[in-house]
Amino acid sequence: MSQLKLLVIHGPNLNLLGSREPGIYGTTGLSRVDKMLEELSVGQGCVLECFQSNHEGAIIDRIQQAKAVFDGLLLNLGAYTHTSIAIRDALASVSIPFVEVHVSNVYAREDFRHHSLVAPLASGIVVGFGPSSYTLGLQGLIAVLRAGGEHV
Amino acid sequence: MSQLKLLVIHGPNLNLLGSREPGIYGTTGLSRVDKMLEELSVGQGCVLECFQSNHEGAIIDRIQQAKAVFDGLLLNLGAYTHTSIAIRDALASVSIPFVEVHVSNVYAREDFRHHSLVAPLASGIVVGFGPSSYTLGLQGLIAVLRAGGEHV
Amino acid sequence: MSQLKLLVIHGPNLNLLGSREPGIYGTTGLSRVDKMLEELSVGQGCVLECFQSNHEGAIIDRIQQAKAVFDGLLLNLGAYTHTSIAIRDALASVSIPFVEVHVSNVYAREDFRHHSLVAPLASGIVVGFGPSSYTLGLQGLIAVLRAGGEHV
Amino acid sequence: MSQLKLLVIHGPNLNLLGSREPGIYGTTGLSRVDKMLEELSVGQGCVLECFQSNHEGAIIDRIQQAKAVFDGLLLNLGAYTHTSIAIRDALASVSIPFVEVHVSNVYAREDFRHHSLVAPLASGIVVGFGPSSYTLGLQGLIAVLRAGGEHV
Amino acid sequence: MSQLKLLVIHGPNLNLLGSREPGIYGTTGLSRVDKMLEELSVGQGCVLECFQSNHEGAIIDRIQQAKAVFDGLLLNLGAYTHTSIAIRDALASVSIPFVEVHVSNVYAREDFRHHSLVAPLASGIVVGFGPSSYTLGLQGLIAVLRAGGEHV
Amino acid sequence: MSQLKLLVIHGPNLNLLGSREPGIYGTTGLSRVDKMLEELSVGQGCVLECFQSNHEGAIIDRIQQAKAVFDGLLLNLGAYTHTSIAIRDALASVSIPFVEVHVSNVYAREDFRHHSLVAPLASGIVVGFGPSSYTLGLQGLIAVLRAGGEHV
Amino acid sequence: MSQLKLLVIHGPNLNLLGSREPGIYGTTGLSRVDKMLEELSVGQGCVLECFQSNHEGAIIDRIQQAKAVFDGLLLNLGAYTHTSIAIRDALASVSIPFVEVHVSNVYAREDFRHHSLVAPLASGIVVGFGPSSYTLGLQGLIAVLRAGGEHV
Amino acid sequence: MSQLKLLVIHGPNLNLLGSREPGIYGTTGLSRVDKMLEELSVGQGCVLECFQSNHEGAIIDRIQQAKAVFDGLLLNLGAYTHTSIAIRDALASVSIPFVEVHVSNVYAREDFRHHSLVAPLASGIVVGFGPSSYTLGLQGLIAVLRAGGEHV
Amino acid sequence: MSQLKLLVIHGPNLNLLGSREPGIYGTTGLSRVDKMLEELSVGQGCVLECFQSNHEGAIIDRIQQAKAVFDGLLLNLGAYTHTSIAIRDALASVSIPFVEVHVSNVYAREDFRHHSLVAPLASGIVVGFGPSSYTLGLQGLIAVLRAGGEHV
Amino acid sequence: MSQLKLLVIHGPNLNLLGSREPGIYGTTGLSRVDKMLEELSVGQGCVLECFQSNHEGAIIDRIQQAKAVFDGLLLNLGAYTHTSIAIRDALASVSIPFVEVHVSNVYAREDFRHHSLVAPLASGIVVGFGPSSYTLGLQGLIAVLRAGGEHV
Amino acid sequence: MSQLKLLVIHGPNLNLLGSREPGIYGTTGLSRVDKMLEELSVGQGCVLECFQSNHEGAIIDRIQQAKAVFDGLLLNLGAYTHTSIAIRDALASVSIPFVEVHVSNVYAREDFRHHSLVAPLASGIVVGFGPSSYTLGLQGLIAVLRAGGEHV
Amino acid sequence: MSQLKLLVIHGPNLNLLGSREPGIYGTTGLSRVDKMLEELSVGQGCVLECFQSNHEGAIIDRIQQAKAVFDGLLLNLGAYTHTSIAIRDALASVSIPFVEVHVSNVYAREDFRHHSLVAPLASGIVVGFGPSSYTLGLQGLIAVLRAGGEHV
Repeated sequence: MSQLKLLVIHGPNLNLLGSREPGIYGTTGLSRVDKMLEELSVGQGCVLECFQSNHEGAIIDRIQQAKAVFDGLLLNLGAYTHTSIAIRDALASVSIPFVEVHVSNVYAREDFRHHSLVAPLASGIVVGFGPSSYTLGLQGLIAVLRAGGEHV
Repeated sequence: MSQLKLLVIHGPNLNLLGSREPGIYGTTGLSRVDKMLEELSVGQGCVLECFQSNHEGAIIDRIQQAKAVFDGLLLNLGAYTHTSIAIRDALASVSIPFVEVHVSNVYAREDFRHHSLVAPLASGIVVGFGPSSYTLGLQGLIAVLRAGGEHV
Repeated sequence: MSQLKLLVIHGPNLNLLGSREPGIYGTTGLSRVDKMLEELSVGQGCVLECFQSNHEGAIIDRIQQAKAVFDGLLLNLGAYTHTSIAIRDALASVSIPFVEVHVSNVYAREDFRHHSLVAPLASGIVVGFGPSSYTLGLQGLIAVLRAGGEHV
Repeated sequence: MSQLKLLVIHGPNLNLLGSREPGIYGTTGLSRVDKMLEELSVGQGCVLECFQSNHEGAIIDRIQQAKAVFDGLLLNLGAYTHTSIAIRDALASVSIPFVEVHVSNVYAREDFRHHSLVAPLASGIVVGFGPSSYTLGLQGLIAVLRAGGEHV
Repeated sequence: MSQLKLLVIHGPNLNLLGSREPGIYGTTGLSRVDKMLEELSVGQGCVLECFQSNHEGAIIDRIQQAKAVFDGLLLNLGAYTHTSIAIRDALASVSIPFVEVHVSNVYAREDFRHHSLVAPLASGIVVGFGPSSYTLGLQGLIAVLRAGGEHV
Repeated sequence: MSQLKLLVIHGPNLNLLGSREPGIYGTTGLSRVDKMLEELSVGQGCVLECFQSNHEGAIIDRIQQAKAVFDGLLLNLGAYTHTSIAIRDALASVSIPFVEVHVSNVYAREDFRHHSLVAPLASGIVVGFGPSSYTLGLQGLIAVLRAGGEHV
Repeated sequence: MSQLKLLVIHGPNLNLLGSREPGIYGTTGLSRVDKMLEELSVGQGCVLECFQSNHEGAIIDRIQQAKAVFDGLLLNLGAYTHTSIAIRDALASVSIPFVEVHVSNVYAREDFRHHSLVAPLASGIVVGFGPSSYTLGLQGLIAVLRAGGEHV
Repeated sequence: MSQLKLLVIHGPNLNLLGSREPGIYGTTGLSRVDKMLEELSVGQGCVLECFQSNHEGAIIDRIQQAKAVFDGLLLNLGAYTHTSIAIRDALASVSIPFVEVHVSNVYAREDFRHHSLVAPLASGIVVGFGPSSYTLGLQGLIAVLRAGGEHV
Repeated sequence: MSQLKLLVIHGPNLNLLGSREPGIYGTTGLSRVDKMLEELSVGQGCVLECFQSNHEGAIIDRIQQAKAVFDGLLLNLGAYTHTSIAIRDALASVSIPFVEVHVSNVYAREDFRHHSLVAPLASGIVVGFGPSSYTLGLQGLIAVLRAGGEHV
Repeated sequence: MSQLKLLVIHGPNLNLLGSREPGIYGTTGLSRVDKMLEELSVGQGCVLECFQSNHEGAIIDRIQQAKAVFDGLLLNLGAYTHTSIAIRDALASVSIPFVEVHVSNVYAREDFRHHSLVAPLASGIVVGFGPSSYTLGLQGLIAVLRAGGEHV
Repeated sequence: MSQLKLLVIHGPNLNLLGSREPGIYGTTGLSRVDKMLEELSVGQGCVLECFQSNHEGAIIDRIQQAKAVFDGLLLNLGAYTHTSIAIRDALASVSIPFVEVHVSNVYAREDFRHHSLVAPLASGIVVGFGPSSYTLGLQGLIAVLRAGGEHV
Repeated sequence: MSQLKLLVIHGPNLNLLGSREPGIYGTTGLSRVDKMLEELSVGQGCVLECFQSNHEGAIIDRIQQAKAVFDGLLLNLGAYTHTSIAIRDALASVSIPFVEVHVSNVYAREDFRHHSLVAPLASGIVVGFGPSSYTLGLQGLIAVLRAGGEHV
């Protein structure tokens, strides 16, 4: 089983996870989430890197740089999920399989959070489990990559 | 860690999983999915039951009977996801936490599959991982129930 | 004053009335509602029968069987109010005057509860009085039938 | 059982009831409706007053004056049902429970009659029974007030 | 040829005609318009009365009072054209043939002026000729009434 | 008072006027309408020509040929009123003042007849008076042209 | 020419054909329609079976059971045409060519009857010929199957 | 059984049938279709004429000329199906029963092909059977005409 | 610095300010607001008059009477903000600069409060500061008027 | 480099180019545009023909005749760009690469000019450069054809 | 009265204020605005800092850094007002009261400027007073903060 | 002929041109495009500079810096074409003529690519010619600038 290289990208305001609107997003901070993901990926024989930015352009840059370097992406694009065609284009450009995750249940919130511009391109989507969305998403991503992109 | 009682409900046409439009739904049959879920739940100290029906009314009946018997539901409502307010009402009536799963990436398909009537009530949603959507969803459901409905 | 034969049809999840979301639907159970309706109809010189089902098809069957047997229908179709063209067609097919009732104020709830497919065919509509919606609706139905379908 | 003070408000063109489009509204005149309501309220130990105006502003004035004087309102706002946010605001301002009634089945008529701006605030709604909508509505209103605003 | 009794109703802000936004409405004042209409109607053997109000309710009252008194109405309802279902109902209630006129070309202005609530009930509509809309509308109204409501 | 040259254009199916759906369009034939218009224009010191075609392109050709020849147009574009941007462009291209007329009350018919593509460019619009729409429209057109395009 | 096995499925309320709203659906009963279809199919060297149900779930069950048994389906899904994604999915799952028929002209009726969820998957659609829609549809179905799914 | 006179009208681009996008429209040419229709009509004791044009106006002219000459029309209006109110008006003007056919399944194609302006007026509609749509449509048309416009 | 004459107009239900839904509108009464505005205007060398009405027509009358008398208007039109084209027309007719204010944050409330018909004509808009919206709006109005309508 | 045969088609009202609304379309006449295009195509070793019509049907005829004769089309369809599905179908039927041009910037004009029915099929689109749109479009067309339909 | 710390954030293109489209935005430069705000805040015993960026991400960063440092924000987000859910989320995350201001009257401009994503969260909104929007907004912000977030 | 200074701005993901989705965007890299543009501009006596960024803010900064330095802009804004009001505002702020280009035919792709926020302000638009869109756009830009912004 070859070693997979995985990149986690957290979008805008996710650096505040844990302190930000805890009624919606819970109290687990981002560094603890990243730690959980690293431990999980080590246990699965994978290498994992994490990145957060509030800048749409910086996220696009990071996705482009991932080309031919990373095998899969785990993305929580935050608000850019709903507004950034440019990030969608970056994902289509680099052709790396990715999983989309959301901490809160976006379908129980404002209408403008119900539509994701990147979901149609995703290998899988996990929504609403709190920080567990990340760990479930990572497991799903690894499963997809190990299966060669085919559903088992 | 108390033993959880879990009910899996498969909606219309999911009895054909594996043979039905394999380009979209993969080749894994429903009995194998149920088996995977049972093994996974045993490993987690849970009891799991599976149910499939093509009848909206039968699914409502089953949800109502689950009240005070099951601790959590894992639901793939198939096409009723998009049309059944009655199933939504049943879920609200019994107040059992549930996770919604979809085998295919519904956001990459027809517009009428993009809206779920039950999603706003779900404890979590898993979409597009093929049969793995079920196993990830089950893990997420157990995590939610063990955490007492709180995100960890 | 001839004796009228009346049929009450309760749609999906109304069997849970009294225990289901009591903040919305109150605490009076369905059997007590049926009892109230029977007493009221006896007092008015009518015969009344009650039926509940979670199955759209079973409700259609029941409406069809009512043809030439019952003089009027009292309907709380629950969620099928908003989605079932088939029940609307059944009502149009049997041509029995009916009254539509709702326990909760559907206009104070989600948008998808604001539209009734059967309302344009109804002899009258009663909404939001709690279980009293049924008794008011029954009184209205009897008045309509006694007046020969004409408003007095 | 305390005596309730009730106010009936008839909106625009309801002074023509009985002569106005009798195919839609029937042939019972407004004074006879008011008489029926008075008799019914006396029988229930209530005091009832009636008011009609074609002026939106006059209806708002009357609602405001009802504050702390009347226990409940029975409203047929006619066309203002569909257009007057100002009357809605008046009702919210005085916080008196009210029942909304319509003589004709508004759902069987033009689209612009299908939406009521005041319905979400109503204690109950009665539609389409002809003049009986008023008497059923009044019974419902009294029931609601006697139950302290709670559904029984 | 029997003498016809005609009523002209000018809606809100038409009392300012001539001084109000002359680029849109021209410089002819309302009294001159009324004079023109009276002369024209005398010449046609008709009796004509004029009324203006900024109050929706007052316009409804005036329409109701016209019942069985006037043979035809010439209406420029101004802004109430687009918002008043209550005036539409008054017109339907009294069943007097009417012609709708507008001084300006409402279709060359804001979107909210493109829809008339009363037009579907009108015997004819004249738009955009400046004050001549009134005189053309009056001629058309008389023609319609003389023809017994039939197109010749 | 200079002699005006006027062109009447009748659109598709108006050649059938009088025999076509008489309940909607009346029983007066097109030749009689043209005759009425000619007499009226002679009486007003004008020269008038009439043209009918079922072909959108032929109507555009005719409008273009009218440039610098005719002083005003009287148009009943029939169904092309609602669909032809090309005719609208032709009218804008030749810059000849025109009046739009309709025999029937288009606002009392199907939704797709409620919108006119040429109305925003018209000097005036007359709708629903039967064949009198033409004569009123012609009077209005002459008045507009005599006033030099200014409302009097 | 091989013998074809064909299944006719009648949806909700079609068991009332002949007695149901005869102005819309005609007076021919369902058993006579079935008889006509059987005779026609015998004449064409085919075997034909008929099924009617008011239950969406039962129709799905029947479609699934048809897999690998029937060569073609003739469907009049009644009201489920417009609301059942689940039946559409069943049809896609079994991959049997089908023809959709409607007795009445659905495009001349309410807006909600203008959209068919199954039409995009149909081999052909026949609408509005009364019971002849069935016989024409059957002929078309046989032609399509005999031509191997290719248009001739 | 009296001899019926039937007119077939093919709209724009149908002269290219057989060579035009054969994946969508098949390879049968228009002359062969016309031949098939003639043979079929002869066999049914009817006289049939065929007409094709790319010009909306020419189609309207042809429909008008058919008045009192032909007993029924078989129409494939191609793209004008979706855009021509003028052809709809022509059909309403001549009051000849007609059947609408389409070679391809328009509901499986672009959204703008899903709406037909003439369908609400049709005696029947046949869609998607390839050239067989014409022969089925002709059979249906003859059946409708022989039955005197009544469904049998 | 010339003395400015200013008129404050309060729309429907604002006479109840202070007692009306205090969670939304606060507890400051209208007379205290008017007093604050008078003191502020005196301090700025202005004369200020206040007017409140629940009648749309009375507000139009008042705006018309302000013509050539007042230099500026401070308007809180309450619910008429969202429904009254007639008040908009009155404001356009008198051409007096005005500032629009709202006590509550209308954008945090129902959708129908998000659109103002008069805002496009306003010199400035102040929303959501509670009664301070009035004092800020008055300061803004005076600044606009002193600057001759130009932004400084 | 083989000689290319190119056809330019100008739609409705483009024969008036130069005199028509010069503020929008400029002052260059169509004959000068055609001359420019011919010179440009000669310089590129191509043969070019020009055609203008106000008739939708004539444009369709011309496109059909171009099949197997011309290698590429340069189209300014004017208003038919926005309304003609029939021309779109003609273009799809003949499968000749084409470039769409517009003289004015249609996106800076009315909403109904923002949508082109043929753009999705075009090899390229040039908008808003005045008559230069034609010459740029022609260059682009030749480049596309020389490159064998592939982008270089 | 405690000293308040206030942060002013100017969004994209506001660095060009004074030179940018002066007909819309006036001729006062941003440095002068900042100066006015500083003087005003000193006079009110507050400390004020100003920040401008064209980068959505930089604005989010700045809002996040303001947490627990500033007491209130004065925001003119320019175009990001209408498109940035990410900035809205940042504001919700830091829970600092803010006032939204706009120099121009956005409601008198393009439709896409009529909707603000942050307005529902604002303590107050000031629109259209030119640079005075800032000074009025600052006064309002200080008033809100001094009143402890309560309307006075 | 004065020397023009031109700036080319490439938006997000255009740095990947040539490798990114070659089926849509072709195989020519951005550096080769820039080279082609430079050669072309030298040949036309112009100076040309190129800039690419994935950051919306950086593009706004660059546009602002171009003010009074560059005579014209050639823009391919990629995904920001459809979402960035801020870039539109920057373009309006600097008042430099610009041409908008797109490599792919955006009208043949997803709906969200059909609307450009900057197109209404452009001097010209070139779409779908592959990299030739740039060279055609540059030629068009130079022609527009040389003509002083007037169409020739």
